[in-house]
Amino acid sequence: MLDFTYVNPTKILFGAGSIGRLGAEIPANARVLITYGGGSAERNGTLAEVEAGLAGRFLSRFGGIEPNPTSETLMRAVEQARREQIDFLVAVGGGSVTDGTKFIAAAIPFDGEPWDILARQAPVTQAIPLAAVVTLPATGSESNAFAVISRAETHDKLAFSSPLLYPRVAVLDPACTFSLPPRQIANGIVDAFVHVIEQYLTYPVEAPLQDRLAESILLTLIEVGPKTLANPTALAPRATLVWSATLALNGLIAAGVPQDWATHMIGHELTALYGLDHGRTLAIILPALLEERRTAKHDKLVQYGRRVWGLSGPDEAVIDQAIAQTRAFFESLGVATRLSAVGLGGETPDQVARRLTDHGLTALGERQDIDPDRVAAILRRAL
Amino acid sequence: MLDFTYVNPTKILFGAGSIGRLGAEIPANARVLITYGGGSAERNGTLAEVEAGLAGRFLSRFGGIEPNPTSETLMRAVEQARREQIDFLVAVGGGSVTDGTKFIAAAIPFDGEPWDILARQAPVTQAIPLAAVVTLPATGSESNAFAVISRAETHDKLAFSSPLLYPRVAVLDPACTFSLPPRQIANGIVDAFVHVIEQYLTYPVEAPLQDRLAESILLTLIEVGPKTLANPTALAPRATLVWSATLALNGLIAAGVPQDWATHMIGHELTALYGLDHGRTLAIILPALLEERRTAKHDKLVQYGRRVWGLSGPDEAVIDQAIAQTRAFFESLGVATRLSAVGLGGETPDQVARRLTDHGLTALGERQDIDPDRVAAILRRAL
Repeated sequence: MLDFTYVNPTKILFGAGSIGRLGAEIPANARVLITYGGGSAERNGTLAEVEAGLAGRFLSRFGGIEPNPTSETLMRAVEQARREQIDFLVAVGGGSVTDGTKFIAAAIPFDGEPWDILARQAPVTQAIPLAAVVTLPATGSESNAFAVISRAETHDKLAFSSPLLYPRVAVLDPACTFSLPPRQIANGIVDAFVHVIEQYLTYPVEAPLQDRLAESILLTLIEVGPKTLANPTALAPRATLVWSATLALNGLIAAGVPQDWATHMIGHELTALYGLDHGRTLAIILPALLEERRTAKHDKLVQYGRRVWGLSGPDEAVIDQAIAQTRAFFESLGVATRLSAVGLGGETPDQVARRLTDHGLTALGERQDIDPDRVAAILRRAL
Repeated sequence: MLDFTYVNPTKILFGAGSIGRLGAEIPANARVLITYGGGSAERNGTLAEVEAGLAGRFLSRFGGIEPNPTSETLMRAVEQARREQIDFLVAVGGGSVTDGTKFIAAAIPFDGEPWDILARQAPVTQAIPLAAVVTLPATGSESNAFAVISRAETHDKLAFSSPLLYPRVAVLDPACTFSLPPRQIANGIVDAFVHVIEQYLTYPVEAPLQDRLAESILLTLIEVGPKTLANPTALAPRATLVWSATLALNGLIAAGVPQDWATHMIGHELTALYGLDHGRTLAIILPALLEERRTAKHDKLVQYGRRVWGLSGPDEAVIDQAIAQTRAFFESLGVATRLSAVGLGGETPDQVARRLTDHGLTALGERQDIDPDRVAAILRRAL
């Protein structure tokens, strides 16, 4: 096991009616900006419920945060928040809204050009406190310190983090997610699954507990993912999906083990260049990356195949099958696993490799040995 | 899954040299009381290392906190801390020292008789902040809000908790535990194992993720427990034991599921009456409790047998074997599982049942249906 520091200060309010418990967690005199996305939170009543729970405080709204939230949009929220002297943010939405709200939280008090937080990794020394009301289980952003922000003008999609950006409170009411379209649920299952893989499928470091915890989340997603897609208003599988997505990226399973994240880094470029849904980029890249990296990841691939997919037989056959089962799982959720299936062709590998070079992301993976040529090779396997 | 609230604000510093990282987490002007037990922390240099890391602050020591810490001893620390205007506590030890330090933290600012915090469950409205340097992996106290305190005068052993009592920081350096005697390591393995069982082996609530997380810790303890006993200075298995013991009782696996705790409640009385080690009481009670409760716990006993012990066959045979394997596991660690093995006889069941009645603990277990007669029946099975 590697040495680590781990803390996660987010308070989770989980279950039916948990929105009603949010008010008690936010100062009575707070000036609150409620952030949200395309309007589904408005239409399905979640926004009104949040506002009712915060009654008595100065409340303001900022809607229209898009999937892959852009600094262009978010800076308008920053201006509004500064004008209204906002001192607490409540994100109502999925990972895009929560990520975007983290950027807003860091940008409000930032001295300088806030895009530098992404482009130059300028340190975040202050942030407005935030809470997250989750309407889409996927990213775990409601209980971590990470955010991924895009810049429309330049087609950039970059990540940042700061311990100041853990939401103080996360509200997880599974019933709030019942009205989501199947495509978004499927994307969320893939996203959570790949989050676990990025922290698990690297190389062994004698960390059997972390391995089993990661496998627990994978096995659970494989079990409940299809169930919750088939029965979108059944509470038990949806509740388990929601909690699985949070635990997939709240820092716990990362503590003490190597991490990969190449699939995500490559995926961000695919989204920025071609507008693909985040979850869909992961489903395309991961199986190809596992094929390209089967030697470097040999031991963990075998363990993954045996324990998660219940495979037996010689190691190499287990690896073949494990990758095939991973691909089949994504496809079974209705998520394509080939670039060709989303209309992308032979020019894509080199385009993505160039963009990673432009962003200085030239040494990806758990051993920092995935250079842009290797990225192109991965993407050629994904054609 | 049941609704829940979950937060754990303790910052974990894990690994070699983590004591050296403690100083950065404690205010530079803090007035610190360092609490410890029988002196092993003094002899093996851990105490000196902690003090070196906190240099520049007012530092004071209070040693001699005993296993099953008593309010009589702890109140002397409270007096010292009040006299010295202590505003930060650092516990260096195992669960007894950390639990005792939580009592000290709550008692220092307490207005009234501090024992009422245990005897009358008087609410804790203030507490001095504390950190925990773990020298014995077992109780998880370094990252939870619970404490169990005894009163020598009356042979009471009672529990309390408050969210104010989460240690701010927990230092977990596995090498600090290398010099422990095998008996204490074995007790710690049993304690952590039974902590998981108390939160897992109840009745199903469609919480497959929580079940798998709990099973992960059980499987890992079964794997590394014997290894770390056989090789007390091998880092990897010890590190995994230490992290397993923390995760066994940091609130995570309890989130969203029923909890039992009857084994612990009965065990506390055995310790208070006869002075048995805490871990040893659990090893005696648990197999007997599982036998007595095999109908109420039927479904989870079958799942436990199949998934944790890899058993197959008809349900009732799986349950028989699961209980037998649990007993055999404890015995393999050198921990007896019968009252007779520790010199206790036929009068014990009724004595313990009476004490629970005296303490108002007359409705134990996940369904609150274990009354004192049932406790006596459990203990007769443990003779």
